[in-house]
Amino acid sequence: MKPKLTIVKVGGNIIDDDTKLEALLISFVSIAGYKILVHGGGKLATRLAEQLEIPQEMVDGRRITNAETLKIVTMVYAGWINKSIVARLNALGNLAMGITGADGGIIEAHKRVHPFIDYGFVGDVDAVNTTTIEQWLKQGLSLVVAPITQDKEGRLLNTNADTIAQSLATALSSDYSTTLIYSFDKKGVLQNLQDESSVIPTIDSTSFEALKKKETIHSGMLPKLENAFDAINAGVEKVIIGDATDLNKLVAGEAGTQIIP
Amino acid sequence: MKPKLTIVKVGGNIIDDDTKLEALLISFVSIAGYKILVHGGGKLATRLAEQLEIPQEMVDGRRITNAETLKIVTMVYAGWINKSIVARLNALGNLAMGITGADGGIIEAHKRVHPFIDYGFVGDVDAVNTTTIEQWLKQGLSLVVAPITQDKEGRLLNTNADTIAQSLATALSSDYSTTLIYSFDKKGVLQNLQDESSVIPTIDSTSFEALKKKETIHSGMLPKLENAFDAINAGVEKVIIGDATDLNKLVAGEAGTQIIP
Repeated sequence: MKPKLTIVKVGGNIIDDDTKLEALLISFVSIAGYKILVHGGGKLATRLAEQLEIPQEMVDGRRITNAETLKIVTMVYAGWINKSIVARLNALGNLAMGITGADGGIIEAHKRVHPFIDYGFVGDVDAVNTTTIEQWLKQGLSLVVAPITQDKEGRLLNTNADTIAQSLATALSSDYSTTLIYSFDKKGVLQNLQDESSVIPTIDSTSFEALKKKETIHSGMLPKLENAFDAINAGVEKVIIGDATDLNKLVAGEAGTQIIP
Repeated sequence: MKPKLTIVKVGGNIIDDDTKLEALLISFVSIAGYKILVHGGGKLATRLAEQLEIPQEMVDGRRITNAETLKIVTMVYAGWINKSIVARLNALGNLAMGITGADGGIIEAHKRVHPFIDYGFVGDVDAVNTTTIEQWLKQGLSLVVAPITQDKEGRLLNTNADTIAQSLATALSSDYSTTLIYSFDKKGVLQNLQDESSVIPTIDSTSFEALKKKETIHSGMLPKLENAFDAINAGVEKVIIGDATDLNKLVAGEAGTQIIP
């Protein structure tokens, strides 16, 4: 039987809320088996860019990352947020190590090439080197991953945290029975965005197509679900989307939206 | 025979100079055996604090670290500088992992208590947990260490990089034949600060006392040399102070100032 691995992606809105983040970390500590926490950025990067008067440009929810913005996101994500979470988990008795995709060469990426949009220093994932990651997990370390990668030339790249979580889950699913949790500030994928009780309990590829057609699923939720389907179709055992404050219920399959092949 | 370990501390003035830093990293890659690079901060943290209008206060060359300054140094040291170095080393073919003292719980520290000065979030090192560090080295990873630690309560702490380098060297010297290099922008400890050719080739504890009395050694060089003597007296095999651009010569014992018990 494969050992159990839980990968939790935690979204920016939770990172920005000290109380919710603390509750999430306490729940994370109580999860049995191997664990990886992938965190997004939150408003701190945007706020810092404003203070430094570096204009920020977003295209389809993705940050255009010029050289100055790359410095900011690397400082905020890999520096402050990553190390704050690591220190907190350690204090809670869960030995943690904070990394990016660059550390130990665990994620190979390239600078995004797009015919019309110059995203700047934005990375797309090519491969995950699982050997080093598995050695770290076997050492008893929980991994805290900031969404920064690098290319072969040594350029750091701002990389979507949902995609990193999915890439890690997919690559590690051959050696681990892997659960991937996308946690954020909603109860799950909602039938009606105004009604937190309208959680859709399961979505399979057929109902996904229907929900897209009806535009129940759109904008930011769309790439998240595409990542979720990529994971479940590539061997990840369980993929669940839900509220960060329900983490233990999400892991137990008692809350949120479960993605089914 | 113990395996060989080289720990290189690189100072802020080198971090600020892209050409010198690149040369140092290329030399670092060529060092045989296990390797750890400990980096300081450089002017980027000071510049960022200025831009954000956070007043910086220095006492005896140590930065007073209030909550806002802690955020800045963690972002700059553990984020931008650390990950830039890691990405560069990886691109140079030397697989690297960037960490702080908090990661993997490798350094135990406490918030400095001083009878007269409130240093703020400044850490003093209590212990180094070598087991995890040795596992990382055995994985073939070079470690890049940012001078941030944490206390038992999970508070991040700004910590002197010279002291971190010395603490790591001392703790690891029981299992490795360890060389500790303090590299900066001078050719070594100078007899005459205005004359780069006046390098003192060796300093032992007797000549150290004499140099202090004559005030040849003072201010910033004093704590560096105290760290160097702490290391050599605690089992570190070789301690050398010298110019970062001479790194390979320093390792070979062909340049700089060597500290002798």
